[in-house]
Amino acid sequence: MKTRFTERFQLKYPIVCAPMAMVAGGALAGAVSRAGGLGLIGGGYGDPEWIAQEHANAGGAPVGGGLITWMLEKNPAILDAALTHRPRAFMLSFGDPRPHAAKVKASGAALLCQIQHLGQLDQALEAGAEVIVAQSGEAGGHGMTNRSTLTFVPEVADILAKRSPDTLLLAAGGVADGRGLAAVLAMGADGALVGSRLWASRESLAHENSKAMAVRLTGDDTDRSIVFDILREKDWPPGYTFRALKNKMTERWSGREDELLAVVEEERATYHAAMAAGDYTIGHSTCGQVAGLIRDIPSAAEILEQMGRQAAEVLARLAGPI
Amino acid sequence: MKTRFTERFQLKYPIVCAPMAMVAGGALAGAVSRAGGLGLIGGGYGDPEWIAQEHANAGGAPVGGGLITWMLEKNPAILDAALTHRPRAFMLSFGDPRPHAAKVKASGAALLCQIQHLGQLDQALEAGAEVIVAQSGEAGGHGMTNRSTLTFVPEVADILAKRSPDTLLLAAGGVADGRGLAAVLAMGADGALVGSRLWASRESLAHENSKAMAVRLTGDDTDRSIVFDILREKDWPPGYTFRALKNKMTERWSGREDELLAVVEEERATYHAAMAAGDYTIGHSTCGQVAGLIRDIPSAAEILEQMGRQAAEVLARLAGPI
Repeated sequence: MKTRFTERFQLKYPIVCAPMAMVAGGALAGAVSRAGGLGLIGGGYGDPEWIAQEHANAGGAPVGGGLITWMLEKNPAILDAALTHRPRAFMLSFGDPRPHAAKVKASGAALLCQIQHLGQLDQALEAGAEVIVAQSGEAGGHGMTNRSTLTFVPEVADILAKRSPDTLLLAAGGVADGRGLAAVLAMGADGALVGSRLWASRESLAHENSKAMAVRLTGDDTDRSIVFDILREKDWPPGYTFRALKNKMTERWSGREDELLAVVEEERATYHAAMAAGDYTIGHSTCGQVAGLIRDIPSAAEILEQMGRQAAEVLARLAGPI
Repeated sequence: MKTRFTERFQLKYPIVCAPMAMVAGGALAGAVSRAGGLGLIGGGYGDPEWIAQEHANAGGAPVGGGLITWMLEKNPAILDAALTHRPRAFMLSFGDPRPHAAKVKASGAALLCQIQHLGQLDQALEAGAEVIVAQSGEAGGHGMTNRSTLTFVPEVADILAKRSPDTLLLAAGGVADGRGLAAVLAMGADGALVGSRLWASRESLAHENSKAMAVRLTGDDTDRSIVFDILREKDWPPGYTFRALKNKMTERWSGREDELLAVVEEERATYHAAMAAGDYTIGHSTCGQVAGLIRDIPSAAEILEQMGRQAAEVLARLAGPI
């Protein structure tokens, strides 16, 4: 498949593995890059030892990385540490990328900036992002609710075409198969950032019980809230919520966060015990609305190959009768 | 454009005009049907006189209709009245269609059933729907929040392929141009139900001030809540919310509905006065996230023609390099 993104980054597929914190390690990011996509190691909140180990685990594949931007304000050194591994590309998400862009660029990495609404686009362009990642509410994990990929991507594409035509655009949220990939290309994206479908791959560091739950559940069975951030004591800025598979914890507390705070110590103990035991009826499974399209746990290479083949088939079939 | 939907319904474009209450009158529905799509007159809560007048205004074009299903439980006679106009197709939305399906089918109309989550699909299939309309949260007006078109459509398509392969599927929510139409076809839909883009057409009965506001605003500027249902004293079942353009009213009360109830009489007076004056900084503008893709107010025929042409171009361009 050829798009501006595959040409610019010399890839076989216009697919980036989302830098999912503690899930996209070297095994997954490396497998995606070797298969012809671009794998990003999910540094998340920024543990330099974990990041170093996972770069080693990538086995020399040309991977990139990513960090949570608002963490960098608290601890700028984690970005320096991450960049010592010479990532091929680096994605900044969830916060103002401008103070950190120069460092990323000086390292030689291509800068990807993820946005959740149009109000963040100016900052990303001022930061000199080579790629804008437009993330919408259907995505798993952290994000915002007010945009969906089908409306956000074409709107951002139109703005970029006018203001910064060389800046590339990836769609994030809702792409789990070749139909989704073909769809976001039709919307005007140059490729897709894929999270949940690769979260549910053999190489992902997500727990097997958690992946198995995604195979069982449907796309109706996800929830967006700050319940798990409260339980994990992650102090996210206002506006960000976390999409996970519904379970006893979300059924009990989503929408009742004030009440959760009243008994939070007890619930934190329950949560941490469940996570330690691999019990995802209580712990969090970071999977988006594509849960209903996840029916197996293949290798990352199989996922990319099938996604690319199906996208090509879908487009050829649709273009035929027109 | 050829899809299963255009073949079955003998259309030029796989585009249905959503039966937007009090907005999709005979002028709009008739224009859509004459242009090669399928126009549905938006009976909404069911005023038989309005429906009769708007069928007359369709000028003999082969239009269909639609009603809010939960209203039929309170007043079944409105369905009988609507069916006397011999609609070509009839869409039931927001409630259990099973008790009303036989009447629709006996009238000769094709039955379209709109769903917002998978839990409603069984009822629609039991009702014998010829077409499932999968509506997602990006849509304007009433709907639900938990699904987005990009994940909902392929998941429903897969279920239909297994359980009811002759049942057609339309995507509702987020389609405003040819990119969106091509995208939902790639996802596995047989066509699109288009609301907001046709709401912002010359023939729509929406107020000109309201349409002008959609032209000015972006896709970030919409909100989903029950604020306007409270103000209009519409007693919607739990789970349904209403997406509209953000304005002073939503900024003030969305997320603070309990506080609104405490001063509701005063706010209702303000709201009704604003609606009477055409002041949409306070009154509701029923437009979805596609607001950012609406930059003009063309005729319905121009919208369909441009959507079809752009979808074909997009698909041809993407299929080329594959």
